[in-house]
Amino acid sequence: MSQDRVSLEAVRSIVDDEVIPLERRFLTEGFQSVVGALDAVRERAKREGLFAPFLPPEYGGRGLSLVEYARVSEELGRSPLGHYAFNCQAPDVGNMELLLKYGTEEQRSRYLEPLCAGAIRSCFSMTEPEHAGSNPIHMSTVATREGSGYRIEGHKWFTTAADGASFAIVMAVTDPEAESPYRRATQIIVPCDTPGFERVENISVMGQRGALHQSHAEIRYQGCRVPLSNRLGDEGAGFAMAQERLGPGRIHHCMRWIGICERAFELLCARAVSRELAPGRALGTRQVVQLWIAESRAEIDAARLLVLDCARRIDEEGSYQARDSISLIKFFTAGVMQRVLDRAIQAHGALGVTDYTPLAFWWSHERAARIYDGPDEVHKVSVAKRILRRYGLALGRD
Amino acid sequence: MSQDRVSLEAVRSIVDDEVIPLERRFLTEGFQSVVGALDAVRERAKREGLFAPFLPPEYGGRGLSLVEYARVSEELGRSPLGHYAFNCQAPDVGNMELLLKYGTEEQRSRYLEPLCAGAIRSCFSMTEPEHAGSNPIHMSTVATREGSGYRIEGHKWFTTAADGASFAIVMAVTDPEAESPYRRATQIIVPCDTPGFERVENISVMGQRGALHQSHAEIRYQGCRVPLSNRLGDEGAGFAMAQERLGPGRIHHCMRWIGICERAFELLCARAVSRELAPGRALGTRQVVQLWIAESRAEIDAARLLVLDCARRIDEEGSYQARDSISLIKFFTAGVMQRVLDRAIQAHGALGVTDYTPLAFWWSHERAARIYDGPDEVHKVSVAKRILRRYGLALGRD
Amino acid sequence: MSQDRVSLEAVRSIVDDEVIPLERRFLTEGFQSVVGALDAVRERAKREGLFAPFLPPEYGGRGLSLVEYARVSEELGRSPLGHYAFNCQAPDVGNMELLLKYGTEEQRSRYLEPLCAGAIRSCFSMTEPEHAGSNPIHMSTVATREGSGYRIEGHKWFTTAADGASFAIVMAVTDPEAESPYRRATQIIVPCDTPGFERVENISVMGQRGALHQSHAEIRYQGCRVPLSNRLGDEGAGFAMAQERLGPGRIHHCMRWIGICERAFELLCARAVSRELAPGRALGTRQVVQLWIAESRAEIDAARLLVLDCARRIDEEGSYQARDSISLIKFFTAGVMQRVLDRAIQAHGALGVTDYTPLAFWWSHERAARIYDGPDEVHKVSVAKRILRRYGLALGRD
Amino acid sequence: MSQDRVSLEAVRSIVDDEVIPLERRFLTEGFQSVVGALDAVRERAKREGLFAPFLPPEYGGRGLSLVEYARVSEELGRSPLGHYAFNCQAPDVGNMELLLKYGTEEQRSRYLEPLCAGAIRSCFSMTEPEHAGSNPIHMSTVATREGSGYRIEGHKWFTTAADGASFAIVMAVTDPEAESPYRRATQIIVPCDTPGFERVENISVMGQRGALHQSHAEIRYQGCRVPLSNRLGDEGAGFAMAQERLGPGRIHHCMRWIGICERAFELLCARAVSRELAPGRALGTRQVVQLWIAESRAEIDAARLLVLDCARRIDEEGSYQARDSISLIKFFTAGVMQRVLDRAIQAHGALGVTDYTPLAFWWSHERAARIYDGPDEVHKVSVAKRILRRYGLALGRD
Repeated sequence: MSQDRVSLEAVRSIVDDEVIPLERRFLTEGFQSVVGALDAVRERAKREGLFAPFLPPEYGGRGLSLVEYARVSEELGRSPLGHYAFNCQAPDVGNMELLLKYGTEEQRSRYLEPLCAGAIRSCFSMTEPEHAGSNPIHMSTVATREGSGYRIEGHKWFTTAADGASFAIVMAVTDPEAESPYRRATQIIVPCDTPGFERVENISVMGQRGALHQSHAEIRYQGCRVPLSNRLGDEGAGFAMAQERLGPGRIHHCMRWIGICERAFELLCARAVSRELAPGRALGTRQVVQLWIAESRAEIDAARLLVLDCARRIDEEGSYQARDSISLIKFFTAGVMQRVLDRAIQAHGALGVTDYTPLAFWWSHERAARIYDGPDEVHKVSVAKRILRRYGLALGRD
Repeated sequence: MSQDRVSLEAVRSIVDDEVIPLERRFLTEGFQSVVGALDAVRERAKREGLFAPFLPPEYGGRGLSLVEYARVSEELGRSPLGHYAFNCQAPDVGNMELLLKYGTEEQRSRYLEPLCAGAIRSCFSMTEPEHAGSNPIHMSTVATREGSGYRIEGHKWFTTAADGASFAIVMAVTDPEAESPYRRATQIIVPCDTPGFERVENISVMGQRGALHQSHAEIRYQGCRVPLSNRLGDEGAGFAMAQERLGPGRIHHCMRWIGICERAFELLCARAVSRELAPGRALGTRQVVQLWIAESRAEIDAARLLVLDCARRIDEEGSYQARDSISLIKFFTAGVMQRVLDRAIQAHGALGVTDYTPLAFWWSHERAARIYDGPDEVHKVSVAKRILRRYGLALGRD
Repeated sequence: MSQDRVSLEAVRSIVDDEVIPLERRFLTEGFQSVVGALDAVRERAKREGLFAPFLPPEYGGRGLSLVEYARVSEELGRSPLGHYAFNCQAPDVGNMELLLKYGTEEQRSRYLEPLCAGAIRSCFSMTEPEHAGSNPIHMSTVATREGSGYRIEGHKWFTTAADGASFAIVMAVTDPEAESPYRRATQIIVPCDTPGFERVENISVMGQRGALHQSHAEIRYQGCRVPLSNRLGDEGAGFAMAQERLGPGRIHHCMRWIGICERAFELLCARAVSRELAPGRALGTRQVVQLWIAESRAEIDAARLLVLDCARRIDEEGSYQARDSISLIKFFTAGVMQRVLDRAIQAHGALGVTDYTPLAFWWSHERAARIYDGPDEVHKVSVAKRILRRYGLALGRD
Repeated sequence: MSQDRVSLEAVRSIVDDEVIPLERRFLTEGFQSVVGALDAVRERAKREGLFAPFLPPEYGGRGLSLVEYARVSEELGRSPLGHYAFNCQAPDVGNMELLLKYGTEEQRSRYLEPLCAGAIRSCFSMTEPEHAGSNPIHMSTVATREGSGYRIEGHKWFTTAADGASFAIVMAVTDPEAESPYRRATQIIVPCDTPGFERVENISVMGQRGALHQSHAEIRYQGCRVPLSNRLGDEGAGFAMAQERLGPGRIHHCMRWIGICERAFELLCARAVSRELAPGRALGTRQVVQLWIAESRAEIDAARLLVLDCARRIDEEGSYQARDSISLIKFFTAGVMQRVLDRAIQAHGALGVTDYTPLAFWWSHERAARIYDGPDEVHKVSVAKRILRRYGLALGRD
């Protein structure tokens, strides 16, 4: 792993020195209150050559492999603001990857370049309230050809970071009659100021509507018209491209979750040392806290090895070949994270549920980790079916 | 159980018809947005003779036993607003009990009567940020006699519902030299408009500062003077009275949690029936969802029987005799609640983390259930030590 | 509960004084080594009026309700030999119930009376190796009418206690063409010395073939002929009768498991007190052991309340009405038992896996508790489907 | 990993073709019934150069690193007889390592050479019934100098494989007054035919006394005299040498457990495919079974990566440096194994508790995995204390 290429220590320094100090304000006053300060951090990251390091050099990155980026992402994940500070935040990363691979020259210069530079943000508009997100072949949003463009009609939600985004990549059905249900949808770029693109509201999630990058919007597409040149990739290729986007997307989440785990572990240990139950008797002398520490250490180490092994496979064989591994780390790491957060909160007592640490934020907002990009159960069933087929069981496609 | 005395159906009707419809507004716009509407519900509850039914008739209640009240409380617990709508909310209930038992005639007429009538609210100011709440003998707030009054100096937090309260009952050390550490503290009534009583802020908890009854305040007592007649009970009796208050307080929480479990269970089942994974194939046809339902049903039923059995013991033998049972239900029921909420959220997918149901609110704000009024571990250790002593083990006092 | 009718103390005395001292020999030398001694205990139980107390008085019992018997069964369950010592052992109890309800006068005098007196033993031959026991409508054993009798052909296993039994009650298909698959099978009494009844072997289970009452046999029925008068109940009623037998059978298991839990809990606490980690520092001073004790106490208490509540429902409404409750206690109690045994073994260290305590026996042989009489998953699915139907979900019969 | 040096396929072939077919006889008739057949397998392993491959070439091995051997050991672990068939069984491997490092020339030629050749077996006699094995500084067995020899007096149990062993390595206190409690004991070689070495019995464990290599003996040392030249290593070095032996010993167990997990996983999947719940509907179509498969796959993969990472650290840095990692894999892998076995048994139904598969053997006899070589809790506490010290907590030595 060429960590010489990107110094983890340099990344960690910025996170510790400049990002973590912003957390409390973020947690108690909202994302909008720290955007300016984060922009300054972004400038430093750029200066130090650490900005969006997964990007190829021609777009300002360092061309990191997934294994290399995994370690960086873990460092960033130690703060809820880390990825944003280095322009490594979802859903922009996934959108950059799509544009890099499928974007026309015009699309790249208009959307990808400012995205890579951190000048604009974007969103990805796929999930619909009326359909189970676990089965994206069911979708009601349609894009109908009208003249030299598409007219989009539909209803989406959980369009993350739409608030303040410059454009959305929208999944819409263009060929409802396609024989294969996997060939019905297409991805289309929609600038957010297009008439007919309506951000209804930021959905209230765990008691917060959030703002800007830290929000999830409900969107209505009503008579929303864009030129054909806004299509990303081929017609009917939307589903396959979304899958392709989700594979690395899932591992990106897992890397970030390892970072969350490590930070929670640091907080757990620090609390065990600093909190006194009685004069001279620290919390960490209690056996139950020691058990939490050991169990967390084992689970985090196991999860990291599993995630790095998956990253290596994707680097070497591609995400299709590694899909079992991707499914396994998705639910395994999310489960570890929830347990580690739970222990860290419990060790903090009342402090653990306040916003004086990021633990409460993660407890509430990362509950979704076991749901988004495929619920635990969907991943478990998928991987089990593939295994059982190798044992000879006849099963329908999952 | 004389449920003829208080009709559970009547309680449930009000909750279903008038309280639950207010939830969404509460969850997305805050408690202050529904206070007015809740006042109207309170009027109906009064008219139907269901207001604070645990109170003796002379204070407007129905004199319910704990077993009887348990079933009412479960009904109220089905909504985060249920207890407030019936004037059964913490911390007022505990304060009413203290005033009933220890209040002077003047204290009762000035504080207890308007509290019972729902005309004012109150708070209980015990926990301090610098000391482990699990061991309340360590406390820095002091009340010094000065002339005909007490001067209180100290720092509290998690003073629930202080925002908008008329008075606080404050735990303060009056005799730091008392031989027994359990005889050092005294309870004192402090009107919230007393100079030197400063509500610093509502603490940001799980991303929300909350408001009014739904908030937890940080309080500073600086040169805060009240007359000696504001003392509640004897000097040095504060710890014993707090323990006495916490016993039933814990069972009140457990009853409420059973109600939360039942509501989550209803939402889980309703979702299983209504959500389609594919046309004609409901979520509830999936075996994993069926397992969640069965496991939840068993755990909730077990928890309710355990809570009712504990309530019966308290009714018959008092909360001191029932203290093992109180500790057992505290951590058992909190654990069941967390698991049931977890399953219900998972079954809801993305909807489960939004504020379109109360599940997300409970997931985040009831994480504290395993912490407040004694963390799980403290209760487990206490009950185990008492058991081991009966087996002959010599152990220090817990 | 008329525990005056059967003194639990009297039962407990016999178990403590006479049954538990036989355990070590049973565990290390096998059941046959203690049969003689157990016969002597049986005589004492008879003298004290405690023998098979669930039987009606005319058969020598005390006519206990299920709730009353539950407490007795718990006491017996504290030793692996307890139920046998009081003639309360499976599968004889279930067979007694069948014969009481469906036996002809001749069948009762020939089979039931000596069974109630403890003079003979019996077995119940239903499970087949080729079919999932969880779905007993699939069965290959057939009983064909030939002249004035049935000729039985088939293959069974897990026919518990066949070794040394005087007769078997066999489930065999008599009408393979019956429209309802639930009307195909019939129960037939087969004396074990009937030609064509071949006990192939006692199956090796968890490393032991066992002997006599403590064994599970593989049986072949080859040209096995019995007169028509050996039919128990009506032709085609076998499945319904088996269900009727299994309902109370399951609660019998649960009662016994509570006894196992209590004994394991006693051993856990006694060990915590007696074992020294270092001079003067008992195992029970360790917090993790304290947690095990508290968690076990809560879970056992919850399970007992759930089982007694189920027994009350069966007493009052019958086992069909209580079938949800029966399913819930079956998996809930089996799960509690496994966890309590696990903790007790862990606290015993190396001693815990030896046969110097009954913990190892229960750990290995009661692993089957989550399988026999319906695996956990089958019960969970059944109860969930019934719940979901009440919520309106259309589902096939489970 | 130079798997070219030892072909895993070759190892697997022998296990599949020659070892697994012996399992059923072993499981139902005991180890003695398969010893002869296993000797023949050993000959084949020798011929193929696969015998005790961890040994240096001069002792007939292949000099495998721990990482290399880990993969071999996993293959062997797929059967309860695998390690024995390749002369890789505990406790002989640990004894070989001790003799290699500390043995005199005479000791090596007399004990090590025949051990490496598989001509004799040995045992390691440390655990005492009166002292917690988790703290081996407490020990009552003493070796007193008498003339030119030691006289050993003491009482041991769980001396694994003493039945049929040629010699024991005994831990005995030689200097009870040594200032450091870690310098009191010495390791001494005692031929099992020495007068005063009495194998009292094979302890009955999980219902079985076992035999030969598959047994755990109680031993009494009474006036047992051996020459001074039988001392292994220095006087007072016994504890340090035992620790040194246990480090790799624990990872050897973990490697074997991964093999057990993989075999259980194979059996689980094969059962899911072959067992029909109804005609045409395999067990593997059930979602709960699919969940078990996916969860097991993730946990086993995670455990393997953790074990291999630990082996790499030991290879590179030594077992002292890797002691945290050793503690983590010890409890993590044992926990995974228990869960995987549990799921595999549950999927097998009644078959799962029989001895027709090795699952029941492992369920009962590997329950001890969470106890031997240090209970889970001891490892968790040790590792947590070391972590907390790095965070600055002052704690006594663990």
